[in-house]
Amino acid sequence: MSESSGIKAPSRRAFLKAAAASVPVAAVAGTAHADDPLITEVQEWASGLGAGVDETPYGLPIQYEGDVIRRTVEWLTADQISSINFTPIHALDGTITPQGCAFERHHSGAIELKKEDYRLMINGLVDQPLVFTYEDLERFPRENHVYFCECAANTGMEWAGAQLNGAQYTHGMIHNMEYTGVSLRTLLEEAGLDAAGDLKDKWVYVEGADASSNGRSIPMEKALDDCLVAFKANGEALRMEHGYPVRLCVPGWEGNMWVKWLRRIEVTEAAVESREETSKYTDTLADGTSRKWTWEMDAKSIITSPSPQMPIKHGKGPLVITGLAWSGRGAITRVDVSKDGGKTWETARLAKPGEKMALSRFYLDTTWDGEEMFLQARAMDETGYVQPTKDELREVRGENSIYHNNSIQTWWVQPNGEADNVEVS
Amino acid sequence: MSESSGIKAPSRRAFLKAAAASVPVAAVAGTAHADDPLITEVQEWASGLGAGVDETPYGLPIQYEGDVIRRTVEWLTADQISSINFTPIHALDGTITPQGCAFERHHSGAIELKKEDYRLMINGLVDQPLVFTYEDLERFPRENHVYFCECAANTGMEWAGAQLNGAQYTHGMIHNMEYTGVSLRTLLEEAGLDAAGDLKDKWVYVEGADASSNGRSIPMEKALDDCLVAFKANGEALRMEHGYPVRLCVPGWEGNMWVKWLRRIEVTEAAVESREETSKYTDTLADGTSRKWTWEMDAKSIITSPSPQMPIKHGKGPLVITGLAWSGRGAITRVDVSKDGGKTWETARLAKPGEKMALSRFYLDTTWDGEEMFLQARAMDETGYVQPTKDELREVRGENSIYHNNSIQTWWVQPNGEADNVEVS
Repeated sequence: MSESSGIKAPSRRAFLKAAAASVPVAAVAGTAHADDPLITEVQEWASGLGAGVDETPYGLPIQYEGDVIRRTVEWLTADQISSINFTPIHALDGTITPQGCAFERHHSGAIELKKEDYRLMINGLVDQPLVFTYEDLERFPRENHVYFCECAANTGMEWAGAQLNGAQYTHGMIHNMEYTGVSLRTLLEEAGLDAAGDLKDKWVYVEGADASSNGRSIPMEKALDDCLVAFKANGEALRMEHGYPVRLCVPGWEGNMWVKWLRRIEVTEAAVESREETSKYTDTLADGTSRKWTWEMDAKSIITSPSPQMPIKHGKGPLVITGLAWSGRGAITRVDVSKDGGKTWETARLAKPGEKMALSRFYLDTTWDGEEMFLQARAMDETGYVQPTKDELREVRGENSIYHNNSIQTWWVQPNGEADNVEVS
Repeated sequence: MSESSGIKAPSRRAFLKAAAASVPVAAVAGTAHADDPLITEVQEWASGLGAGVDETPYGLPIQYEGDVIRRTVEWLTADQISSINFTPIHALDGTITPQGCAFERHHSGAIELKKEDYRLMINGLVDQPLVFTYEDLERFPRENHVYFCECAANTGMEWAGAQLNGAQYTHGMIHNMEYTGVSLRTLLEEAGLDAAGDLKDKWVYVEGADASSNGRSIPMEKALDDCLVAFKANGEALRMEHGYPVRLCVPGWEGNMWVKWLRRIEVTEAAVESREETSKYTDTLADGTSRKWTWEMDAKSIITSPSPQMPIKHGKGPLVITGLAWSGRGAITRVDVSKDGGKTWETARLAKPGEKMALSRFYLDTTWDGEEMFLQARAMDETGYVQPTKDELREVRGENSIYHNNSIQTWWVQPNGEADNVEVS
């Protein structure tokens, strides 16, 4: 390493060409110097053998990433069985969510159901009621799609004011995976939909095999459009907590409809009006009435870093602001970022063009002047919908809802780099 | 479940509409009947609570999938440190490979290197030699890309004849992940390439921090094109065995160049001609000479199911043949499947349009007549390149190579559904 004596702080020259020209130039703090023993001395890891290839047939994250885990909020639910945990979105990048840290929501706990014991029934208004084994499902044509799954209650604690201090807790009831499965349409057609007559007003009721029998009604149009009976996520079998061996994907629609351990699909004349679509998963409005059938997840975004769990530690100068955006109505087309609580906006860079019903990653490559910021992100989707402010949403919805809070989030970044969940208006 | 008395075997009506019309019709075997106790009786998993959300902060696959793991072949290497294990591609679907079961290749074992201890040096023919901490890297503009990484030795045991009985072993030195990182170009420009003068003939030497100091020379054109200094894979931190905290991605090029625990990047006048690019990772030809600089991975495909580890258990009738295809020269445009050892071919369905330097999943939705098959897949890429037969490849390359065997693989499927690795000519 003959050049070590010449090491200096990065010039930032090339980087700053790409950054906003109006932002003050600042050197990167914390760059190693020529006398850094990590450069000048032989390190332990370079002087001996590491772990062999037979040591971890199935690997887990390295110990130093032990804080990047699903977390619960104890006071949120009466117990940990009918409860929720949260994806550590603050610490992730890209768009794929590993199954191991993807949020869980159960109504009666995650069950262990062997493939050999799995059965899927299609009944109701079909020519031929059918029962499929897991192996039967594998014989139909398969599809692959990346979809986000968001719990309708994501951000639900924030209706009455800023509550939870971290993107993981305010927005972590979401994950995004590549699913493999058979289209629901294929299975419904296999059972014969002739008996249903005019399909326009018919419904499909989907039900899980766990003790809660979580069941939801889906309009036939959606059932025949893009619903997927999935058995793999991110290439491998669904994890137990994500519905092994088979779950339903209802792209863009609230997570409660993505029934896990899917055991029954009934074609019905009308919606079942189950517990999970009447007493739950409806939205109480300002006037005390409730609205139902709010299936689609409205366009939404969240800055994952910096954020309360991801403070700025490097001081002023070059800063990457990043986050996630999504819409249940199609592809994300644009994300804007504000540093002043929504007064002015800059358009962020999407890592790749938005894809329907999948997370988009956005970046704003900027320079921080070391002053406080009120960071916001605002998503727009291909329908022209623009993510609303908290005030705009409350004007329509009041403060008594739990579900479908897709309002703009604000992180107050202080000069010391720490961030807090706040509201601005 | 009032319809259970009406359950019969699937009619296959709709499915067969989509299948090849010339293939004999056959009912699905193994479909459950009306008296199946899994339908008529209350099951254990539906009558009690399951696991709570606080039980697995980071989850692993369910116990029933315990055989979907990386596996080693003991006789292949002298020890398990400088060795290889194999991705269970036979049991995966879709395209993403979870980090936990993505193949490993180490030259001196997987090392534990903390982010705080990580340093990346850029030196050599640059204006300003630099050292970056991990935190420094996070301040540059990031990119997201899905890329495959294939060891040059993948399928290397098959040169002299059919050796290993399973897609995992013959073709499992490959994985495909969504990477997040900073382009190598950005970092090189930060150090200033003016000192290198005319860049056309210059090289970049990249080196790992493990004891093997695995180092490879990369032509400047590739270094400035699409190489990525990556710190996340599939959204989360790289696993220890994949180079935590930082590895290089060299899209489409042999895996040995994807240096893990990346510690140094030197801009040089000429290639270094390191051990890993002279005595290893060169190809001995039929005439005894060796060729080098065979960086690009040629177009290749493999049927993952049915295959020796994934026999057909359901008998004749509807059958999904599936596999993976990839090319180091761009996107896969077409995959053909043969059931008769290459005499006749059917074009398979790509799950989505091919993407540059990423795995493509293909499916052939067909009907099996219960007779023996000699299954082959043949990939084509956007350059017009067609994957060669074993005979075609051996004509050029002989049988003494280890690396870059991208020839067509044959699985002999017997009437009992079992499959073996064979050769046909």
